[in-house]
Amino acid sequence: MGSKKSSRRRFIQKGAAFAGLAATPASLAIAPRAAGSQTRGSAVPDMNSMEYVLYGERSRFVNAERILEGHDHHEVNRPRPDPYRPSAGTPIHDLVGIITPSSLHFATQHHYGIPDINPSEHQLTIHGMVDRPLIFTVDDLKRFPATSGIYFLECLGNRPRPTDKTVNDTHGRIACSEWTGVPLSLLLQEAGIKNGASWIVAEGSDAGQHTKSVPMAKVMDDVLVAYGQNGEPVRPDQGFPMRLLVPGFEGIYNVKWLKTIKVVDQPYLTFQERSRFLGPDHRSSHFIYELGPKSVITFPSGEDRLPERGNYTITGLAWSGGGTIRRVEVSADGGRSWTDAKLRQPALKRAFTRFDLVWQWNGEEAILQSRCTDELDQVQPSANEFARFWGHTVTEIHQGMGSRFGHVNFIQPWKVTTNGMVHNSLET
Amino acid sequence: MGSKKSSRRRFIQKGAAFAGLAATPASLAIAPRAAGSQTRGSAVPDMNSMEYVLYGERSRFVNAERILEGHDHHEVNRPRPDPYRPSAGTPIHDLVGIITPSSLHFATQHHYGIPDINPSEHQLTIHGMVDRPLIFTVDDLKRFPATSGIYFLECLGNRPRPTDKTVNDTHGRIACSEWTGVPLSLLLQEAGIKNGASWIVAEGSDAGQHTKSVPMAKVMDDVLVAYGQNGEPVRPDQGFPMRLLVPGFEGIYNVKWLKTIKVVDQPYLTFQERSRFLGPDHRSSHFIYELGPKSVITFPSGEDRLPERGNYTITGLAWSGGGTIRRVEVSADGGRSWTDAKLRQPALKRAFTRFDLVWQWNGEEAILQSRCTDELDQVQPSANEFARFWGHTVTEIHQGMGSRFGHVNFIQPWKVTTNGMVHNSLET
Repeated sequence: MGSKKSSRRRFIQKGAAFAGLAATPASLAIAPRAAGSQTRGSAVPDMNSMEYVLYGERSRFVNAERILEGHDHHEVNRPRPDPYRPSAGTPIHDLVGIITPSSLHFATQHHYGIPDINPSEHQLTIHGMVDRPLIFTVDDLKRFPATSGIYFLECLGNRPRPTDKTVNDTHGRIACSEWTGVPLSLLLQEAGIKNGASWIVAEGSDAGQHTKSVPMAKVMDDVLVAYGQNGEPVRPDQGFPMRLLVPGFEGIYNVKWLKTIKVVDQPYLTFQERSRFLGPDHRSSHFIYELGPKSVITFPSGEDRLPERGNYTITGLAWSGGGTIRRVEVSADGGRSWTDAKLRQPALKRAFTRFDLVWQWNGEEAILQSRCTDELDQVQPSANEFARFWGHTVTEIHQGMGSRFGHVNFIQPWKVTTNGMVHNSLET
Repeated sequence: MGSKKSSRRRFIQKGAAFAGLAATPASLAIAPRAAGSQTRGSAVPDMNSMEYVLYGERSRFVNAERILEGHDHHEVNRPRPDPYRPSAGTPIHDLVGIITPSSLHFATQHHYGIPDINPSEHQLTIHGMVDRPLIFTVDDLKRFPATSGIYFLECLGNRPRPTDKTVNDTHGRIACSEWTGVPLSLLLQEAGIKNGASWIVAEGSDAGQHTKSVPMAKVMDDVLVAYGQNGEPVRPDQGFPMRLLVPGFEGIYNVKWLKTIKVVDQPYLTFQERSRFLGPDHRSSHFIYELGPKSVITFPSGEDRLPERGNYTITGLAWSGGGTIRRVEVSADGGRSWTDAKLRQPALKRAFTRFDLVWQWNGEEAILQSRCTDELDQVQPSANEFARFWGHTVTEIHQGMGSRFGHVNFIQPWKVTTNGMVHNSLET
């Protein structure tokens, strides 16, 4: 049926270290084999059952799961509530594209369990400095004009450590979904905002009564009361039946199981803000809002193994609370030289942007890392630059100085060793 | 806690029939109630189980399912294969945004069951008019530069009938996902296309060996060998581990469980093309490729009930194989006058575009319909215009004249009666 005469030669061929996406066919040759035997699937009754016809499932050969976290950054010395739910990260190594499947969306800060809310009984109350305090049912909300956006969410605790093995460990508290809901500005317009109102305080229905202050300027810009996620109702571990969605801000602003919005004239130092997010001096990063530019290579990454020399497509994700990702550069030599990666379209504001770059591995040790720039010209820093900015050493950062430094967005290096194994090479 | 003094007045207020999205607060008043009692969820052990931590599920209060089809447009007189799997539509009435959850993506033409493929044993063969016949495993494919796109898929049989009750019945064989895969052009470049090659023939691994011809110009433009759907591997009922993705073409081109691509110099009249998609004269719509501009109002739609007079947000979906949706107009008076709806962003090429328009229902009978225009200036036709174009009466179209007319993309009218009930008002 054919011949493989040129396959190996094409595959082993030498070329520039970065072949680029406009590469010639030769530089893309990837160990193809000559045509031969074919495979045929066989029908399995389960997948043709009425249950699967009505609501489909994954293949039994696909088994990505959320990543249980071994360390709990903020809660180590606290008693665990009952029921206790561990934090779980997104298996970003297994993702393709920019949408995170809802079943795999990271779920953290559920220390008091997930409330089981009947949407027909749930209400959102808007009160405080308004002309008309109002209550909305879920059905009421759905009569308002909705809007949708593909936005990332990231937990402020999404911080790589030198002891982490995989990219799921280092960067798993991140996800990106299409969110649908009503602009909170419309609801506040309906209630009428009194003069002097400058913040809102949002509270959830969870047993922990998670509460967060959000500045009014952000609320009027793009904050949603979201009831939809990836086309369906928001999942329980994401705040069913409604959550606050504050694009580009720290995850903790996106209050789940949203119950109350109080319009106020100053930020509240609520439990979350007071106990966890201030340093001992009550000063540094008093309120940090917007997440900085950040990117990470998801393949190849920690614990991957390159089976042979040759061409691979480096791929990863970039995002920024500051807006659209304009550029991602990749280095394979520890940061001495950088090459622009290709950004997949659409590259949307405050969404994941997927980048790709074909790279030829010559069998020698290599350090791979990515660096992104957003539309505000903010550039992702190295670990050294980051530590210097916050007045710490890199070691102090890794040892965890509370959260007195803000969003940890420094560059993540992966070392490819001569046997093809890939390791986390964050310096300690 | 507050007063509702102005709520009813604001709600009942008179105004233009279309308030528009830049409406004043008054026109957006939506029967809000004064603040009062609050609800609190209680923790349910199931949702905090390790199973849910590792792989999340929907709320137990969410139960959208795919829609079993009562009529099988093309197969009525054929014996059913064993195993037989009924066609199932997307419950588009329940969708929000533009992404279709993979579990609810329509699944049709599975008359021979869904193959249970082990991806480590699956291979894609490229042969025919190529310099180097090649075989690719799934892992081989993943080493190539991938691309992603949000694209709709629509079954050619997605055709409303006057007897259909809901929008799920009339328009359910449609969905939109983020698809990720390797451009087929890259794989063909790798194999080397011989002079004179002008088509490919793609074949699936299903027991029915579904096969389809695709013109080379389209292949070189944007056809993918897709292994990713909404961030995860393609689902079994969508072609796991890989399918052809032919953006904007009839659903049947998007060969699932893709096994073989043969490069050829003419279209093949394969089983599917020969037996089902030609008229008795073997002439009309011999090859129809690209789906026309189409839109439908999903709310309010058949079997919805408007509980009271007042403001509602009409919403729906628009799509076109011809490219980006540029405009959607909505009429509430049977087509005498039209108002531009708001298009949610991003409005992407060959993807669903979600539209919205605030509408004030005054309690009188109304006929709601939407009409879209794509970037090629193609305008969605009325049923009469459509029938006239194909040389039929509307009655003949509804009675089903085979598939001798192409993609059924005419305007769908919904009648709101004085008691608030909504009915399909396609004329018979």
